[in-house]
Amino acid sequence: MARTGRRPGESTTRAAILAVARDAFSAQGYDAVTVRRIAAAAGVDPALVHYHFGTKERLFRAVVHDAITPQDLLAQSLAGDVEMLGERLVMRFLDLWEQGGGTVAGTLLRTAVTGEAGARLAREVVFPAVVQAMTRRAGVRATHLPLRAALIAAQLSGLVIARYVLELEPLAQVPNEVVAAAVGPAVQRYLTGDLPGAGQGPEPSAH
Amino acid sequence: MARTGRRPGESTTRAAILAVARDAFSAQGYDAVTVRRIAAAAGVDPALVHYHFGTKERLFRAVVHDAITPQDLLAQSLAGDVEMLGERLVMRFLDLWEQGGGTVAGTLLRTAVTGEAGARLAREVVFPAVVQAMTRRAGVRATHLPLRAALIAAQLSGLVIARYVLELEPLAQVPNEVVAAAVGPAVQRYLTGDLPGAGQGPEPSAH
Repeated sequence: MARTGRRPGESTTRAAILAVARDAFSAQGYDAVTVRRIAAAAGVDPALVHYHFGTKERLFRAVVHDAITPQDLLAQSLAGDVEMLGERLVMRFLDLWEQGGGTVAGTLLRTAVTGEAGARLAREVVFPAVVQAMTRRAGVRATHLPLRAALIAAQLSGLVIARYVLELEPLAQVPNEVVAAAVGPAVQRYLTGDLPGAGQGPEPSAH
Repeated sequence: MARTGRRPGESTTRAAILAVARDAFSAQGYDAVTVRRIAAAAGVDPALVHYHFGTKERLFRAVVHDAITPQDLLAQSLAGDVEMLGERLVMRFLDLWEQGGGTVAGTLLRTAVTGEAGARLAREVVFPAVVQAMTRRAGVRATHLPLRAALIAAQLSGLVIARYVLELEPLAQVPNEVVAAAVGPAVQRYLTGDLPGAGQGPEPSAH
C-alpha cells in the first residue's frame, strides 16, 4: 500500500520489521516478544518500530493482518460444486496451515486463548474479516452470516487444535483428504444449511 | 476410592488439597500455580501434597480426572432418539460448562494449547477417557471410534473457544438451544455417520 509523505525505502524497512516480527511471534509466542528485540533482530532502532507500528499489540495486529487472509481462502475454494464448498474449504485451510500460514495463525490462537489482547484481536480484527469475506460470496447463504462465520471459526479452530496442537490420534495422522471428507459436511452445513432456532432465511445465492 | 494402609482422615486431606488445587489452577492457570502455595492455602505442609499427588503435573492430572467425566456426559445424553443424540450431547455439554465444569476444562484447554505438559495430559488422559466412554455405547457407531472421538473433541473444543473465550458474536449470545441445534447435527454425524475415506463400517449399534 503506497503511503504519501514517506521516503522510498520506508516500505522496505516496514516489510523487514514485519518479517522479523512474524518469525519472532511464531517462535516465541506473543508474551515473550519485545519490540526492543525485534528492532535488534531487524537491525533498526526501536523508535523506528514504534514509528511504523506503534505498540507491540499493533505490531502483532499488522503481522496477523498480513498473514491471515480469509478472503483468499474462500476465493480459492469456490471453483466447483456449491455442495462441496465445505470440503474444499477444509482442504485448502489444511494446505495453507501446513504450508506455513499456520505459524502466525497458531500464535494468534495460543495468544487468543490465553490473554485478552489476543482474544480482542481475534474478535475485532480477524473475525470481522471472515464475516466480510463471506458476504455476498456465491455459494454462501446470506442469512445469519455472522453466526455462520462463528460456527465455521469454531469448527476450524477446534480442528487445528485437535490435529496439530493436541495431536489426537488418529486425527493427527490421517491424510488431509480424510479430514476434509469428515469435517467438510459440517462446514458445508454452516455455510449453506438451515440453522434451526436461528430463524429461516432465503435460498442460497446462485453460484 | 478406598486405599489400604492409610489412616482415616487421609482421604479428607486429599480431598481438601484437591479442592484448593482445582480453584488455584482455574483462577491462576497451570504455570502460575506452585505446590507450595497450594499447600499454604490448604493449611498443610508441602510434603503432604507431594505425598498424596507427587509433582505439580500429577496434581493437575488428578484435578482434571476428578472434574472431567466424559462417561457422565454421554450417559446423561442417551435417553431419547438416537438421531438427536448429537444435539442432546451439545446441550448437556454447554450446561455442564456453564455450571462450573468449564473452569477446570477451560484451564486444561489453555494449558494444553500453550504447553506440552497440558497437551500430553489432554492426549494421554482425557482423550482416552472420551474414547473409552464411547466404546460399546448404544447409539455410537463402533467403527473408527478414536477418529470419531477426536472429531467430536475438535468440534466441542472449538465451540467453547469461539463462544466462551473469544466471545464471537452472535455465537456468544444465542441461547444454548440454538447452539445445540446448529452444532448437534455435526456431532451426530461424527457419532453415527459415514466417514468417507476412513473406510466403511457396520450399522450403528441398536439403541
